[in-house]
Amino acid sequence: MELDAELGERAHDLDRAHVFHSWSAQASLDPMVIAGAAGCEVWDFDGNRYLDFSSQLVNTNIGHQHPKVIAGIKAQADVLATVAPAHANLTRGEAASRILARAGDEFSKVFFTNGGADANENAVRMARLVTGRDKVLSMYRSYHGNTGAAIVATGDWRRVPNEYARGHVHFFGPFAYRSEFWSDSPEQESERALHHLERVIQAEGPAGIAAILIETVPGTAGVLLPPPGYLAGVRALADKYGIVLIFDEVMAGFGRTGDWFAFQNPELNPEGVVPDLITFAKGVNSGYVPAGGVIIPAWIAEAFDDTVFPGGLTYSGHPLAMGSIVATLDAMAEEGIVENAARVGRDVIGPGLRALGEKYDVIGEVRGVGVFWALDLVADPVTRSPIGPAEMATLKKALLSRGLLPFAADNRIHVVPPCIVTDAEVERALAIYDEAFAEYSAR
Amino acid sequence: MELDAELGERAHDLDRAHVFHSWSAQASLDPMVIAGAAGCEVWDFDGNRYLDFSSQLVNTNIGHQHPKVIAGIKAQADVLATVAPAHANLTRGEAASRILARAGDEFSKVFFTNGGADANENAVRMARLVTGRDKVLSMYRSYHGNTGAAIVATGDWRRVPNEYARGHVHFFGPFAYRSEFWSDSPEQESERALHHLERVIQAEGPAGIAAILIETVPGTAGVLLPPPGYLAGVRALADKYGIVLIFDEVMAGFGRTGDWFAFQNPELNPEGVVPDLITFAKGVNSGYVPAGGVIIPAWIAEAFDDTVFPGGLTYSGHPLAMGSIVATLDAMAEEGIVENAARVGRDVIGPGLRALGEKYDVIGEVRGVGVFWALDLVADPVTRSPIGPAEMATLKKALLSRGLLPFAADNRIHVVPPCIVTDAEVERALAIYDEAFAEYSAR
Repeated sequence: MELDAELGERAHDLDRAHVFHSWSAQASLDPMVIAGAAGCEVWDFDGNRYLDFSSQLVNTNIGHQHPKVIAGIKAQADVLATVAPAHANLTRGEAASRILARAGDEFSKVFFTNGGADANENAVRMARLVTGRDKVLSMYRSYHGNTGAAIVATGDWRRVPNEYARGHVHFFGPFAYRSEFWSDSPEQESERALHHLERVIQAEGPAGIAAILIETVPGTAGVLLPPPGYLAGVRALADKYGIVLIFDEVMAGFGRTGDWFAFQNPELNPEGVVPDLITFAKGVNSGYVPAGGVIIPAWIAEAFDDTVFPGGLTYSGHPLAMGSIVATLDAMAEEGIVENAARVGRDVIGPGLRALGEKYDVIGEVRGVGVFWALDLVADPVTRSPIGPAEMATLKKALLSRGLLPFAADNRIHVVPPCIVTDAEVERALAIYDEAFAEYSAR
Repeated sequence: MELDAELGERAHDLDRAHVFHSWSAQASLDPMVIAGAAGCEVWDFDGNRYLDFSSQLVNTNIGHQHPKVIAGIKAQADVLATVAPAHANLTRGEAASRILARAGDEFSKVFFTNGGADANENAVRMARLVTGRDKVLSMYRSYHGNTGAAIVATGDWRRVPNEYARGHVHFFGPFAYRSEFWSDSPEQESERALHHLERVIQAEGPAGIAAILIETVPGTAGVLLPPPGYLAGVRALADKYGIVLIFDEVMAGFGRTGDWFAFQNPELNPEGVVPDLITFAKGVNSGYVPAGGVIIPAWIAEAFDDTVFPGGLTYSGHPLAMGSIVATLDAMAEEGIVENAARVGRDVIGPGLRALGEKYDVIGEVRGVGVFWALDLVADPVTRSPIGPAEMATLKKALLSRGLLPFAADNRIHVVPPCIVTDAEVERALAIYDEAFAEYSAR
């Protein structure tokens, strides 16, 4: 698209006049206009370029406008853009087989959705139906999507087996830096968090609990890496009480942690435990076309061989989305993109952010793996009290003005570039973070 | 794509091995493989061609593979496939302004989603937040989507203002052919259905009711055209009790009834009443890229000027989806596609189906408008007892074997071709329906 300041003004004006925004009070918004993007950069209509260390909403794992994915979308568009989910479609089968090849031998089928929220919806549905139980346990520090009522508004028979927005129980997960368990080491945090989870299970009644639903690495909540033994401990509790274990890998999956799935990362899960269901979206096709899904083991898939699965959606296994998945997964494999995320995280991002952490008191903790990092920012390194919205706004402005598009959440900067990020781009970003924190600290 | 029977087998085998299907018991499925499509036809890898009188899931209003929409998708893919919703994007603004131009002056903003389910989710969210009330009334004969628990599984603050899968109350809508109100005319059905709705409102407590959510024409439930005065009567009740009125136009909107929106169709809504919120998906871009949304009047949009709207999703206003909306709406206008749906429904489909209704006892009622019709099939025209699944399977097979892809639901065949359907295609389809009913009746 031509870079033309007038087009930028038109984009801004149309947005302010007619676009209702997510998670926002509408009047005070002044959105950046993005005209185009490539790789790890985005630009506006005035020609200003920004290093994208947000991956938008932590979804463009393959970077912007990857030529093989764009070509895959265009090729599929020429053949068949859309088809009803009941009909078979070659690209859908190819996408499912590639996803299963990455997930591992325990899994046999994929149910496709439009994104992460409806992936979690359907995983919960499966868990409740195969167990005949009602309750779902998930963490307070979590995000699993924002849908909650369409099926209860629906009148026809499809509502009746689906009135499931009940029985949700929340527990605290491990977070050593801001412990809920008065622990003083990651090991103790893990042990106490598992004790707490088992007490919640017992107090809620294990015989009524269908599922434990956790992000393998809680993402928007702050990139909370599971401490030693935690994932294995949760798996053991699920087994002990006959509970379906769902790993939400919407943000953590498809390269973000430097492995295809976060649960396959030996640093996060040295015991190599495997969940019963995996939910995904974002990185599977970097969000080039809306898509998500549930990865299902044979024992759960077979439970619906002769029993109707009461869930579905018009765009399940949408051909254009499937074409983008096939192209994305093939390009990621061919170009070693997951391996790049692991290496650059270990050798460049991690050391660089830790050096900043040493240098600036405002950085209370640096945590992460792969291209999935958070800087936990504090007003006081002893009390660990978070910095406030005004301080965050100052920092965001300092980063943007130097040409870096940051991901900010609460009192944190998440450092979440695409998996294709180069050493040189990380060095440029580190220099910008350094300058911004220097300016901030000198206020 | 090359037509190659081996590719067809591969598509079928991959599907059976790895694709988990919507709304189905998985073992008995034998899905048709669709290799490609154009206009009102689809074909398989063996070269068999079918007239698509299903529009897939009643979504390909512009027909398959419309060249202008495919070109629009490819052009947008070259510029920018995806962007976070917080950033402004020219194509998103262009899509919003086109949708608003069709909806009318009462509306000022669009909130984009991935499909119809999350459109209804967000309309319900808005209605509850602007009224401060809890209950939502919708019809037993309805479908509004299949999401219901992701936000209650979410742990963080975003759950707290959103625990909304409570307070859903269902009522019976009008359906003169199978009345719940012992009526003997459409006028009486309308009057009694309105009385019933008001009694439900009074019995539930008007002060606690946030929204009435209805499909302008209940679609999957059987293409149930509102009888005289019904929509105006519901609007009057909503006004009387301060309730937000939501019209779900996911299936009925964007040409299906022969108007841009079903509520603009003078046959369905001669009084011209306007809802408070409109939800859409399907026809807005014929499902070429997953997309949906909520059309919002100024008074509701402004309620969130200084108050955070607690809803959102990663792919809200997704550029590729927006590109397909712009191309679709422009092509529909340029080519008079909505007008075609009105004309062909009035002059060809309606008379043709009514003639079949006269000819075959199994057709209990013919009802519809535009390219949105249903044949209500009965074992006995006096008792109107529906035909069963075995009879429906026989009919479906008779239609498929003659080269027509039907839309079947319960005891009904929905006659729902794309809005671009030609007189000649309708005549071909009518001949096939005729032969199939003749064969069925001669059993």
